Amino acid sequence: MRSIAKGLGLGSAAMALTALTALAWPGTAGAAPTGTASLYAPSALVLSVTAGPDAETGTVLRAVTLVCSPTPGGTHPNPAAACAELRANGSQLDPLAAPAADAVCTREWNPMTVTAVGVWQGRRLSYSYTFANPCGLRHTSGTLFGF
Amino acid sequence: MRSIAKGLGLGSAAMALTALTALAWPGTAGAAPTGTASLYAPSALVLSVTAGPDAETGTVLRAVTLVCSPTPGGTHPNPAAACAELRANGSQLDPLAAPAADAVCTREWNPMTVTAVGVWQGRRLSYSYTFANPCGLRHTSGTLFGF
Repeated sequence: MRSIAKGLGLGSAAMALTALTALAWPGTAGAAPTGTASLYAPSALVLSVTAGPDAETGTVLRAVTLVCSPTPGGTHPNPAAACAELRANGSQLDPLAAPAADAVCTREWNPMTVTAVGVWQGRRLSYSYTFANPCGLRHTSGTLFGF
Repeated sequence: MRSIAKGLGLGSAAMALTALTALAWPGTAGAAPTGTASLYAPSALVLSVTAGPDAETGTVLRAVTLVCSPTPGGTHPNPAAACAELRANGSQLDPLAAPAADAVCTREWNPMTVTAVGVWQGRRLSYSYTFANPCGLRHTSGTLFGF
């Protein structure tokens, strides 16, 4: 435990304090009162689907939240599977987004863009992937963008 | 009901379909199955606190999610109050972030940066505010960044 604490740059006294704080604030998973550190490297994401090729200017059709520590949660329809995929892939999300190899889609240009923004394991994440058309999105490889 | 549907650019048939879909997926507040529209303009945010003046490169200390429709939720410690503040202020968040006028703080430079990224009422939101030091953050005006 001591070596893990050192690895995270936290003293064991600070960890003990954080553990007590977590007990005192049972309803705020992932959050800690102002001024204290969390026991977990924070992970909190917003995933969205936008019509068009540009996530900044297109119409946002759907957006969900995903939290992976201490337990999977959020408004994503399958947070446990999505968190497992993220842990397996790190921040390289193309294999999760791209249409499955066996997907059968027409090839017209009617783009849909998915994004993931927020914090993953303490680091900022900003990702986007544009599908040629909605069929590609329906056949996305992972569950992460299947909402 | 019909006039609201027109205002949102949705036909009543689409609304009825969405309502049925919502009944069929009771556990996915804010999310809809791939390919269908949601009844609500999506709102899903990640709020974070970063050490230092630059949210992109600093260490993310804490991050929470906030969802405001259909009901307030997420890992934010007080989602109802935070959503009410967002509705009152739109995307102008400086009055919510800045230290309260009556805050008594020293003035040393030990910056802390808060961010809000994601989607607010169907539009992308990317906001950051840098406090001169942690005292400023502890005296933030609103509850939005009080986590």
